[in-house]
Amino acid sequence: MRVGVLTGGGDCPGLNAVIRAVTKSLIHHGQCEVLGIADGFEGLMGQQPRVQALDWEAVSGILHIGGTILGTSNTANPLKDAATLAQVQANVQALGLDVVVAIGGDGTMSLAHGVAQATGMQCIGVPKTIDNDIAYCERSFGFDTAVATATDALRRIESTANSHHRVMIVETMGRHAGWLALEAGLAGAADIILLPELDYDLQAIAQVCQAREQRQRYTIICMGEGAKQSGASQTVQARVETSPDPVRLGGVGHVLRQQLQPLINSEVRTTVLGHIQRGGDPTPYDRVLASRYGHKAAQLVLAGQFGQMVTLQNGQIGSVPIASVANTQRTVPLGHELLVMAQDIGISLGRSRSKQ
Amino acid sequence: MRVGVLTGGGDCPGLNAVIRAVTKSLIHHGQCEVLGIADGFEGLMGQQPRVQALDWEAVSGILHIGGTILGTSNTANPLKDAATLAQVQANVQALGLDVVVAIGGDGTMSLAHGVAQATGMQCIGVPKTIDNDIAYCERSFGFDTAVATATDALRRIESTANSHHRVMIVETMGRHAGWLALEAGLAGAADIILLPELDYDLQAIAQVCQAREQRQRYTIICMGEGAKQSGASQTVQARVETSPDPVRLGGVGHVLRQQLQPLINSEVRTTVLGHIQRGGDPTPYDRVLASRYGHKAAQLVLAGQFGQMVTLQNGQIGSVPIASVANTQRTVPLGHELLVMAQDIGISLGRSRSKQ
Amino acid sequence: MRVGVLTGGGDCPGLNAVIRAVTKSLIHHGQCEVLGIADGFEGLMGQQPRVQALDWEAVSGILHIGGTILGTSNTANPLKDAATLAQVQANVQALGLDVVVAIGGDGTMSLAHGVAQATGMQCIGVPKTIDNDIAYCERSFGFDTAVATATDALRRIESTANSHHRVMIVETMGRHAGWLALEAGLAGAADIILLPELDYDLQAIAQVCQAREQRQRYTIICMGEGAKQSGASQTVQARVETSPDPVRLGGVGHVLRQQLQPLINSEVRTTVLGHIQRGGDPTPYDRVLASRYGHKAAQLVLAGQFGQMVTLQNGQIGSVPIASVANTQRTVPLGHELLVMAQDIGISLGRSRSKQ
Amino acid sequence: MRVGVLTGGGDCPGLNAVIRAVTKSLIHHGQCEVLGIADGFEGLMGQQPRVQALDWEAVSGILHIGGTILGTSNTANPLKDAATLAQVQANVQALGLDVVVAIGGDGTMSLAHGVAQATGMQCIGVPKTIDNDIAYCERSFGFDTAVATATDALRRIESTANSHHRVMIVETMGRHAGWLALEAGLAGAADIILLPELDYDLQAIAQVCQAREQRQRYTIICMGEGAKQSGASQTVQARVETSPDPVRLGGVGHVLRQQLQPLINSEVRTTVLGHIQRGGDPTPYDRVLASRYGHKAAQLVLAGQFGQMVTLQNGQIGSVPIASVANTQRTVPLGHELLVMAQDIGISLGRSRSKQ
Repeated sequence: MRVGVLTGGGDCPGLNAVIRAVTKSLIHHGQCEVLGIADGFEGLMGQQPRVQALDWEAVSGILHIGGTILGTSNTANPLKDAATLAQVQANVQALGLDVVVAIGGDGTMSLAHGVAQATGMQCIGVPKTIDNDIAYCERSFGFDTAVATATDALRRIESTANSHHRVMIVETMGRHAGWLALEAGLAGAADIILLPELDYDLQAIAQVCQAREQRQRYTIICMGEGAKQSGASQTVQARVETSPDPVRLGGVGHVLRQQLQPLINSEVRTTVLGHIQRGGDPTPYDRVLASRYGHKAAQLVLAGQFGQMVTLQNGQIGSVPIASVANTQRTVPLGHELLVMAQDIGISLGRSRSKQ
Repeated sequence: MRVGVLTGGGDCPGLNAVIRAVTKSLIHHGQCEVLGIADGFEGLMGQQPRVQALDWEAVSGILHIGGTILGTSNTANPLKDAATLAQVQANVQALGLDVVVAIGGDGTMSLAHGVAQATGMQCIGVPKTIDNDIAYCERSFGFDTAVATATDALRRIESTANSHHRVMIVETMGRHAGWLALEAGLAGAADIILLPELDYDLQAIAQVCQAREQRQRYTIICMGEGAKQSGASQTVQARVETSPDPVRLGGVGHVLRQQLQPLINSEVRTTVLGHIQRGGDPTPYDRVLASRYGHKAAQLVLAGQFGQMVTLQNGQIGSVPIASVANTQRTVPLGHELLVMAQDIGISLGRSRSKQ
Repeated sequence: MRVGVLTGGGDCPGLNAVIRAVTKSLIHHGQCEVLGIADGFEGLMGQQPRVQALDWEAVSGILHIGGTILGTSNTANPLKDAATLAQVQANVQALGLDVVVAIGGDGTMSLAHGVAQATGMQCIGVPKTIDNDIAYCERSFGFDTAVATATDALRRIESTANSHHRVMIVETMGRHAGWLALEAGLAGAADIILLPELDYDLQAIAQVCQAREQRQRYTIICMGEGAKQSGASQTVQARVETSPDPVRLGGVGHVLRQQLQPLINSEVRTTVLGHIQRGGDPTPYDRVLASRYGHKAAQLVLAGQFGQMVTLQNGQIGSVPIASVANTQRTVPLGHELLVMAQDIGISLGRSRSKQ
Repeated sequence: MRVGVLTGGGDCPGLNAVIRAVTKSLIHHGQCEVLGIADGFEGLMGQQPRVQALDWEAVSGILHIGGTILGTSNTANPLKDAATLAQVQANVQALGLDVVVAIGGDGTMSLAHGVAQATGMQCIGVPKTIDNDIAYCERSFGFDTAVATATDALRRIESTANSHHRVMIVETMGRHAGWLALEAGLAGAADIILLPELDYDLQAIAQVCQAREQRQRYTIICMGEGAKQSGASQTVQARVETSPDPVRLGGVGHVLRQQLQPLINSEVRTTVLGHIQRGGDPTPYDRVLASRYGHKAAQLVLAGQFGQMVTLQNGQIGSVPIASVANTQRTVPLGHELLVMAQDIGISLGRSRSKQ
C-alpha cells in the first residue's frame, strides 16, 4: 500500500511525533510505502506534486522536535475551484496514493472530507488543535505543551507582579474555547481566569484586584484571547478584530487593561503570549499522546477503515467518521469540574458572585 | 468541622498541590478549620501531637513546589501496638478532628483504614504513587513529573550514547509496575524497554544491540527497577536485593550490564536515576491533577462521605471505599495499547519475537 | 553594625540571591543586624519607615526565586523635594542604619549617591540591569536568565517559522544596549540580529530574507527594542514612543514588520517578548553571580568602604566609587568580538556589506 | 585550504556549537573546505580514513544539540606504535589536510601535539573539559550546562530531603578539580560542599548534620567524585577504585554514606549523578561560549597560527602553544573567592573551623 501523509493548518507541538508513529507503524508492518506531502494540501495542488519518501531514517530523531518536518499551510484550499480539485485528483493518482493521512484541525478535516467526496481519494484524519477544542478529542496533542508554556510565562510574570505590586494580565490563545487559559491559569496560580465561554463583569474583576491590593498587593489575570466583557463586549471585540491600524493592537488583554486601569490603584500591565505558545518541543506527555494518535491512524490504514478520524474518549483511542466533526466545537461547559474547582479554591472567573 | 491532613509514604511531586486544594476548598466553604499533621501518622503517635493550623496563607505559594510542607514518614505505624493506637485515638480526640484526610500510597491507605476500623476515627484517602500503580487511579499525580524527569535523563544520555557509540542502560523506578519505564521509554525514544511485567530474554536484547551496532551504532535501554531476566532471574534478583555489601549495588541496571557486555562489542554503561525521579516541581499537568484530587477530597469531607478514597477512572474524578484498594495493584497488562504501539513502532520489549 | 538593604528599579532575576548573600555574610560575621527596606527608597520616604528584620531564616530558601522579597519601585524619588529628603534622613537615623546597601540600576545608584551627599547617609551600591549595560560590570546578574528566556522563545518561534515558511521577528528588551538581542540571537541561531547600536538598512534585511526564501524558506530576526532604521528611523521611533493610542503599539518589532512585508513574499510576524524576560527563577549561573555581588557588598560594609559600588571586571569582583557610574553606559562597541563572530558565521546585522 | 575537524575524549555539551562555528567561519571566508573526521583520531587510524564533508547545511541546526555529530573516542591512540602513526600521516596526506582542528581534553591535546611533532601535521587545539580544569581556560564550554544539570538535581533532591528529614549526598563529576561540585553546590544551596582539593573531616560533617537535625531537619551534601577523607582516605579511595566487584560500587558518595550513617540520627542517602551530567543540550551561555572557541580556532587557521590552543583568560579569547598545557591542571586554589564566599554564607567545606 502507498500512503500519503500531510500536515495542515497552524503548527502544533507533537506533529512530528504523529508523523513518526504513523510512518514507523506502517513501515514496520512491512507492506507499506509512505510519502510525505509538503505544506499540507498545497503540496498536491501544483502541477508537480511536492513529496518526499518517508523511510525509517527520515522519521528518526524527530519525536521531540516542535513544528512539522513536512511543512504546513494555513491557506491552501484544494476545493477552491474545479481546476484545482482536478489537479489534486490527478496528483493523487499519479503518485499512486491508496490513502492520505491528513493531520490538522477542523479546516483540514473539512478539506480532506471534501476532497474525498469529490474525487474518491481515501483519507484518514488525525485531529490537531492547540486549543483542545475538537469534538471527540478530550485531550489533543500539543495542548499539554501549550499549557506548560503559558504556565511558565505566568510564573515568570508573577515575579514581577509581586515585586512591583502590579496587576498583570496574561493573554493566552483560545478564540472560542477557554481550555488553555483555564488549565494554565490553574497550574500557574492565576487569581482571575477569563474565558470566551463566560463573559466577564468588569466591576467584579476590579473588586478582586482592590481586595488583593490590601494584602497580597498583586493580582494575576489569565485570559483567553476570545474573552469579552458582558454586554458591551461585542463592540469592543469588534473594534479589536477590525482595527484598521496596520500595527496590530494586541487583543483583548490590552482592552481589559484600558478598562481596568481607571478602576484600581495598582499599575496594570499586559503580556500577550503570542506565537511562543504554538512552538517548542512537545512535553513527554504530548510525545506519547501524539504517538498514540499516529499509531491509531496507521491501524486504521492497515484495517482499511477509510474516512475515519482518530479520537480520544474516556482515555481510549478510537475513531469516528470524519464527517461527524464538521461544525462541532468542544468549549468549556458551564459547571465543568475545573470551573467548580477554580471557584472553590478562590479563583475568580470575572463574574459577580450571584451570576457565577 | 475540624479536618486533619497528613501525607504518608515516599514523597511525590504534587503533594503540596493536594494539600493546598483540600485546604482552600474547605476554608472557602466557610465552616471548616484545617490542621496539618506533621510527618504522616507519626505526628499523631507521640504524647504531644505535632500539628499546625493551615490557613489560606499557609497554603499559598506552594502549588508548584515539590515535596510536602507537612513532612512525611516511610516507617510510622500507628497500628504497631495497642498503646500506640490508643495514643493516636487520644490525640485525634484531643485535637477534635472530625475527619483525617490521608494522602499516601497503599501503605498509608491501609493504615488509615486500620486506624479508622480500630478507633472510629473518620478518614478520607487520597492515593499517591509515583509508580502509577494504585487501583482505580488511571493516572496518579506525580507520575507525569517522574516521566518528564526520566525522559529528560534519557535525552541527555542519548547525547553520550550516540557520540561514543555505546549501549546505555537507564534504570527507572518501578518495582512492580512498569508504567514509568514504559512512558519514559516511549517519550525518550528508547530502543529497548524492559518492564517488571515482562521477563526479558538476554539473547533478544543482545540481538537488538548487535543489529544497531551496524547502523545507528548506539542503543538506549530503559528498564524499570523490577525488571528481571526470564528464568534465571529469580536468583539474580535475589542477589541484588539481599546483597550483604553495605555499599548498595545499584540494582538491575548493573546486573544487566554485566550480563550484556560479554555478548556485544559496544561498551555498555548504566545510569541509575534514583532519587531525582521523586523530587522536583510538579509539571503543570500534575499541578492541575493533584488539585483535582485535593478538591474532591474536600467535597467528600463536606458531603460527609467518610471512608472513601478519591479515584480517577475514564477521566472522571470519583471515589471508592478505601478498603477496596487493599492488595490490588495496577500493573501494565499484556496487550496494553502502549505495549502494542511500542512494538509496532519498532521498540523491543526484550523478548524474542515468537514470545512477544 | 546595623545595615539596611533595599532593591530599586525594575525587578530582575537574582535580586533575592543578592539579598541572601549580603544578609548571610553579615549575620555570619557576627556583629551585624540587617533590616530589609520595603519597595526601594519608598520604604524610607513615609512617616513610618517600612522595614523588616532579615535574619537567617528570612533569607533561606530564596536563592532560586525570581523577583525581590523586599519589593521594589520604579518611581520613588527621595530627592524630589526637601521635605522628602528630610524624612528619609530622619528615618535612617531613627532606624539607626549605619549604612544602606542599595541594589538597583543607574537610577538607584544616582539616588543613593544623591541621598548620601545630601544627608550623610552611608551607602554601598550593587548594580542591577537586565540589559547588561552598566559601566564596570562586564556581566550583570539577571542577564544570563534573560538571555536564556529569550533564547528559549527564539527556539519555539523557529518551529513555527520553519513549518509555515515565515519571517518571524522577535523583539527583546534593550532600549540603548543590544547585549540581550546579541547573545540571545547568537544562542538562538537567529539569521538577522538588529541592535540599537547599529541602525539597520531595510533593503539589506529584505535581501537576506529573499535569499533565504529560496532555500531555508524561513528567517528569524532578533531585534532589541531600541533598534532603529538608518536615516528615517528617528521619526518612526518617535512615533512609536509618543503614540497617543492608549493601547500600546508594541514597538519596533511591529514597525519593522510593516516596513518589511511589502518587500518580500513570505508572511512576516512579530512577537514582543515583554515582561517574561524580567521574570522567572535565575539560572544557576546567575545564582552564583548574584551571590558574589552580594557577598562583595557585605565585605565592603565590614571593611567600612562606603560610597562604593560592586563591580565585575576581567572576571574579578571589585568596586569603584558610586559616583563614577553616573551618565555612563556600556553599549556594544563596534568591532566587538561577538559582532565579528556573528558576521563571520553568516549572521546579518542588517547592514549592507560595504557598511558593516 | 583544506581543514580537518575532530572531537576526542568524553562528550560534552557545546561540541556541536564549536564544530558549527569553526566550519561556518571557514566556509564564510570563502577559501576553505572542511572535512569532519569520525570518532576522534580513530577516524584517521584505519586504512580507510573515515571523514565527511562539512558544508553549510551539515552544520546548520546543530547549535543547541548535545554530543558531537562527528562521534568521539576515549581510547584511540595514534601514537601507540609506529605503524599507526604512519597510517595517520598517510591519511592526512591522502586527504590533503593542511591543518587539523582537534577539539578535546588534555589527552587529545597531547595526542595532537604528539602527532604534529612526529609527522609534521599542522594542528590547532580547542580545549574541552566538563570539569573546567584545563589551564588557560577560566571557563570551558559545557561546564555551565553541567552545573545547571547538577543544580537541577540538587533542587529535586532537596524536595525529598526536606520531606523525609534526611541527609542526602549528591555525587557530581570532578575527579581532580572541584569546580563543578563547588558551583553546583552554591547554585543548588547545598549545606556542605566537598571538593577533591580539600580533604574532609568526617566529624566536622557529622557536626553540621547534627546541628541541622535540630532545626532544618535535613542536610544536602554536594561532593565531587574525587573528594576524600582526611588521613584515612587514601585507603578508602583505593578500595573504591580497585574494587574487584564487577558491579560498580558507585564511588565516594556511597563511601561517605557508610561513614556518616553511624554518627547521626537522620537517614543518609546517596545519589550518583553519573552520565546525565555530560549530556543534554548546552545552555544558551555554553552555545555562545562554544561558538567563540570555534570562531577563534577558525581565525587561527586563517592566520596560519598553527600549533596553538584556544584559551579564555580575563574574559578574552586568545591562544597559547598547545605544548604549554601538558601536565597542568586548573584546580580550585585555597582561598579562592568562591570558597571564601561559601564559608561566609554559612556553607561547610567539611573541615573543622580551625583548619579552614
